[in-house]
Amino acid sequence: MEKCITKLITRYYETDQMGIIHHSNYYRYFEVARTDYLKTIIGMTYKDVENIGVRMPLTETHCKYKTPALYDDEITITTTVREMTVVRIIFDYVITREKDGAFIAEGVTAHAFTNTENRPINLKKFRPELFQQLFSVANTDSLEK
Amino acid sequence: MEKCITKLITRYYETDQMGIIHHSNYYRYFEVARTDYLKTIIGMTYKDVENIGVRMPLTETHCKYKTPALYDDEITITTTVREMTVVRIIFDYVITREKDGAFIAEGVTAHAFTNTENRPINLKKFRPELFQQLFSVANTDSLEK
Amino acid sequence: MEKCITKLITRYYETDQMGIIHHSNYYRYFEVARTDYLKTIIGMTYKDVENIGVRMPLTETHCKYKTPALYDDEITITTTVREMTVVRIIFDYVITREKDGAFIAEGVTAHAFTNTENRPINLKKFRPELFQQLFSVANTDSLEK
Amino acid sequence: MEKCITKLITRYYETDQMGIIHHSNYYRYFEVARTDYLKTIIGMTYKDVENIGVRMPLTETHCKYKTPALYDDEITITTTVREMTVVRIIFDYVITREKDGAFIAEGVTAHAFTNTENRPINLKKFRPELFQQLFSVANTDSLEK
Repeated sequence: MEKCITKLITRYYETDQMGIIHHSNYYRYFEVARTDYLKTIIGMTYKDVENIGVRMPLTETHCKYKTPALYDDEITITTTVREMTVVRIIFDYVITREKDGAFIAEGVTAHAFTNTENRPINLKKFRPELFQQLFSVANTDSLEK
Repeated sequence: MEKCITKLITRYYETDQMGIIHHSNYYRYFEVARTDYLKTIIGMTYKDVENIGVRMPLTETHCKYKTPALYDDEITITTTVREMTVVRIIFDYVITREKDGAFIAEGVTAHAFTNTENRPINLKKFRPELFQQLFSVANTDSLEK
Repeated sequence: MEKCITKLITRYYETDQMGIIHHSNYYRYFEVARTDYLKTIIGMTYKDVENIGVRMPLTETHCKYKTPALYDDEITITTTVREMTVVRIIFDYVITREKDGAFIAEGVTAHAFTNTENRPINLKKFRPELFQQLFSVANTDSLEK
Repeated sequence: MEKCITKLITRYYETDQMGIIHHSNYYRYFEVARTDYLKTIIGMTYKDVENIGVRMPLTETHCKYKTPALYDDEITITTTVREMTVVRIIFDYVITREKDGAFIAEGVTAHAFTNTENRPINLKKFRPELFQQLFSVANTDSLEK
């Protein structure tokens, strides 16, 4: 199972008046990490994926917040593919802070495969190459589930 | 169990290039609805809550996406308190679209009660009045859980 | 010259750790107000405008910040069309706070008229009806400028 | 006059349904670039600046949009201090795209120096060292203006 390590620095506009990074931004960090996963591990940008007619709309998201990230924190997002089938894919994320190793948050995003008209597709039939690329890096047991 | 009905209109900047409302915004709608819940059902703004030294940082969030909301959609968010104890509170949300009744999304947010230094507090001891106000509108079985 | 009055309540996620509404959000409030202007004064939603093949991408924006808006402030945005030609339109905005009349900010946004391929168009030739509707509410001297 | 070069990649959630980066995000890129300017050129993070009791709230912002940035574009923001006095500072920004050198946008942000109570301060009196650090990299003619 491949891991993608993405590093970024939290931004001022992402803070709120509690003095911490607003919780909604973690889902945006997950998206940055997922984009990076495709680029780094699969060798395709999400733009490339869209260009061959595939969309990966979100069907479910989940996040647990452990330690609040603060402004200008360097954070690391570790992304893996937890599970994948011909119709959907699930990513796992763990966010830690560089300077003290604090466990910031962990999350999950589930995606359907659709065409440009937002119709569900069987990725293995519609774009077999992309399916194979994704499947080869996912947890090998995932199709059984 | 009290319900709060919040109506809002989706905004252009909330769309993404898939032509739908970006999934991270649902958590922001939940926040608007939660603020409205406190104001309407409890009679306190979240500003009032902060002013008496209480914070409600997020510990966990979850959302399932059913039908994508589009730009300029009038949506309704129905908010309830699912469960509450002396140290935390959990809200449930359902989002539907006005014009066709489409089921857009449903979600959950869990919050700890903390003081201004982000230390966990027992709300019943720290601010008994606020605790009673919240508890009286929550699901009556919630403390048993 | 027609005025559109838009009211909204500032949101928690729009605050930053200075405890005020982050300055970038004013441009988002302007957008909400502009959408409202089209709907209320012109009788077309921006969705309708897009549906007849017209886009109004931003070419320039400007904002002066007077008094910081805070979380949960009820604010009023007063929108007018300052100037309009066959190829562009300029909106003016003034933001005030309801409870104390504080002058929050004022701004300007300039837009080109383009087709769906982002090519500049002469709106009077391309969509004469929309042009007339917009022009009739703009400052009557605007074409001379 | 010192220049700071900041590189970043545009994010999916920053796009809108026109298929381009939403215009409000440029002000957020300017903020990232300004933070980077302080860190790289002045040797202080904005967090450090806040920690010695200084705030730099925005008083005016301005942006001209030339070529729309798209999702996953690598962009470069070149930041300079245009002008500085004991009570305020003005930054200039130019955004270009890496792959084709396209001129994306240019902008200006003006900031007052205030204390933590948002009162205007004379930075030269209040924090002479920070004033000298900033002033030494600004346009040398700026105090005359």
